[in-house]
Amino acid sequence: MRNDNPQITEASSTLSAQMRRGDLFAEKCPSRDVLKHVTSRWGVLILVALLGGTHRFSDLRRKTAGVSERMLAQTLKWLESDGFVARKAYPVVPPHVEYSLTPLGHQVALKVEALADWIEGNLPQIMAAQAPPEA
Amino acid sequence: MRNDNPQITEASSTLSAQMRRGDLFAEKCPSRDVLKHVTSRWGVLILVALLGGTHRFSDLRRKTAGVSERMLAQTLKWLESDGFVARKAYPVVPPHVEYSLTPLGHQVALKVEALADWIEGNLPQIMAAQAPPEA
Repeated sequence: MRNDNPQITEASSTLSAQMRRGDLFAEKCPSRDVLKHVTSRWGVLILVALLGGTHRFSDLRRKTAGVSERMLAQTLKWLESDGFVARKAYPVVPPHVEYSLTPLGHQVALKVEALADWIEGNLPQIMAAQAPPEA
Repeated sequence: MRNDNPQITEASSTLSAQMRRGDLFAEKCPSRDVLKHVTSRWGVLILVALLGGTHRFSDLRRKTAGVSERMLAQTLKWLESDGFVARKAYPVVPPHVEYSLTPLGHQVALKVEALADWIEGNLPQIMAAQAPPEA
């Protein structure tokens, strides 16, 4: 991937050789936090929703049935801090804030969607497997 | 099975569609529990580890650094009840229990692995994005 941002180069140079790639099986690897954010209950749904385009906070909340305002804000903050979601606030009354995927967020969202899509599509088989075997 | 249109989930609110396919955006859909199990902190690592072949409980515990015996047992039970993991106990002393992926589990594990692999491979870019911008 092309890197035009000198900050990225600088940050990357401070990473140890091991950090050229994360290792989810290593207890202290920061990749575990990223995994936690994108696979959190609401993280998955927010990423998939944003694949459909930019959303306002209230639109995301309506679409993601069951999420509280607090958890939606928390999850968006995680995804924003990982560089997956961009937040844009317009100086209008009433406040207007929009969320969208960054290019990096678009990539991870496609992986998350593939998993979510598999689960949705295979739910009948999974529920059949869940049924207790007859005596 | 791939859903290229995120809006299609809205169509799943009809009864007939729900019977054929899960809908993660619906609050009561059982697909949300399945998602929770496979994307739980240890679920991801266990599925990826089992892609490498059958494991004994102690092998899984060693490989999945940081997991407690209790959480490993709980996660394996979830994955077993979803039909993703098969448990085989051998009647020997000391007890010998092996875990492996079912064909359904192999499929979902490949999706989970694709996500895990993306995160590991892109960790440097993610950490660079996490770095606060200079003033």
